[in-house]
Amino acid sequence: MTGPHVVALGGGHGLYASLTALRGACETLTAVVTVADDGGSSGRIRAEMPVPPPGDLRMALSALCEDTDWGRTWRDVLQWRFATSGPLDGHAVGNLLIAGLWDRTGGIVDGLDWVARLLRCEGRVLPVSTEPITVSADFTVGQRVERAVGQVAVATAPGRMQCLAIDPVDPAVPAATLEALAEADAIILGPGSWYTSVLTHFLVPRVAAALVAAGPRTILTLNIAHEDEETAGTDRIDDIAALRDAAPGFVPAAVLVDATEDDAALRAAVESWGARYVVAPMREPGTVDRHDSALLSEQYRSLVTWVRSGGAPAR
Amino acid sequence: MTGPHVVALGGGHGLYASLTALRGACETLTAVVTVADDGGSSGRIRAEMPVPPPGDLRMALSALCEDTDWGRTWRDVLQWRFATSGPLDGHAVGNLLIAGLWDRTGGIVDGLDWVARLLRCEGRVLPVSTEPITVSADFTVGQRVERAVGQVAVATAPGRMQCLAIDPVDPAVPAATLEALAEADAIILGPGSWYTSVLTHFLVPRVAAALVAAGPRTILTLNIAHEDEETAGTDRIDDIAALRDAAPGFVPAAVLVDATEDDAALRAAVESWGARYVVAPMREPGTVDRHDSALLSEQYRSLVTWVRSGGAPAR
Repeated sequence: MTGPHVVALGGGHGLYASLTALRGACETLTAVVTVADDGGSSGRIRAEMPVPPPGDLRMALSALCEDTDWGRTWRDVLQWRFATSGPLDGHAVGNLLIAGLWDRTGGIVDGLDWVARLLRCEGRVLPVSTEPITVSADFTVGQRVERAVGQVAVATAPGRMQCLAIDPVDPAVPAATLEALAEADAIILGPGSWYTSVLTHFLVPRVAAALVAAGPRTILTLNIAHEDEETAGTDRIDDIAALRDAAPGFVPAAVLVDATEDDAALRAAVESWGARYVVAPMREPGTVDRHDSALLSEQYRSLVTWVRSGGAPAR
Repeated sequence: MTGPHVVALGGGHGLYASLTALRGACETLTAVVTVADDGGSSGRIRAEMPVPPPGDLRMALSALCEDTDWGRTWRDVLQWRFATSGPLDGHAVGNLLIAGLWDRTGGIVDGLDWVARLLRCEGRVLPVSTEPITVSADFTVGQRVERAVGQVAVATAPGRMQCLAIDPVDPAVPAATLEALAEADAIILGPGSWYTSVLTHFLVPRVAAALVAAGPRTILTLNIAHEDEETAGTDRIDDIAALRDAAPGFVPAAVLVDATEDDAALRAAVESWGARYVVAPMREPGTVDRHDSALLSEQYRSLVTWVRSGGAPAR
């Protein structure tokens, strides 16, 4: 039996944490990355040319770079942001390189594979879609309902979120992404921005169907703290309720909860969903909301083995 | 005896032609590249951050890429230019990558060496200076004298050029560049834009001193035709006169002339300078001003051997 093939979904810093923790904990590792970002360097690139936002993909590639002088140097260069008083200000070098590869060849997956080869990545990075996705949501502020369009607007809008949606409604999903989800021994969802990096996967119909089918192989990692604006005023139980709403038919094998969040009501919410409730101390010392890479890795290693051996007995 | 170490100086398409011809014709190959460009993508980058213009360096690196799928793919990506309606329009991807490497590390030579490693270059690319250089010249149009500042302005100004100068007047030259010139078995100067890619090397005092010392090892390749604006109305003899003016004390070992330019007055100008006059058919079929790579290579191979064996008897 060869080592497990694990797929981690998400975007930004949450996915970076998962990928860092999963390196060495599996035989092959694939990241499936959101393409909904419309802020900063990525937002400017997608506004300027018809490509997905490269930033979250660049972050995932960076997380998987070879741990050598070669890999670290190219990672640092791709992660580097220009600081000028001109139009290049704020652009990450890697975003421009990825956009250049895409612009030249038109092959989204092929371009990412070339960057992975450059970084000698231990794993592969795939987009959830080859089309840029725009998220939108309604927010209730008092009696008023306001519509926020774009990931930045959605993540920072005040009020209670409703009707999270994407445009286009059925974006193209690369065959490689669907194959990776179908063939994975285990799938990791979360941590990360709950609405824009976790729930959005279920808004892409072809990915949602793959995730529903892969539920018994999926480990859902809840966030440690609600420090970001998009989930202000909500808690872990709200997160689960929102995900269940967005992902009808999806039941993960296990829900991984940091010890600081352990709570009888949360356990009940998880178990009534049909998932195994797993609690472990995973917070990085000195932080309020970050997963410690080694502690998260330990949990992934054991849960991947458990999922792979059938999982069911522990439910 | 190991194969020869050859240094080729210049910029842009002329240097690209030399480097292509020299690949395989020597054991080690180093390009020493002008940093005076202020047009297009390079010009916008040097206006936005305090770095040399990367374009001519990118071209030289591209000329030396490994002839494999890997080398050619990265060359094509670095040479790719964005075509958008936004601020990235016209930028070459490689210019942005080189600028990013420089911006991150501050090491101009080190950054170029990293790109050479990426392309698996058969050779090394060094800048003539680590500081951006601005060329300027006076032009006499009828009775008026007008000053043109910057490579683009100098290359396109009407009238007769005088007083070509650079700012700063004594720019920093990397130790690696001076070492390459001192240790080369042979040095190739030209073809290329005569004033802005060939003469400018003699305006950098430390490089001029190295070239004067290296005269007996230097092969000067004259251009085939005067198709560019900067030398309109002049001929090969004017080119030599301008170079002799700009480079007092410099005498090349040989001057390589295309058969279409062969002429008794030109021969006299070269021989009175003290150099060997070498004529060969080198024009690429179907073009008026391009060197054929294989024919140029053949001449370089034989002249490098001749220079290396002492050269003098043939004078």
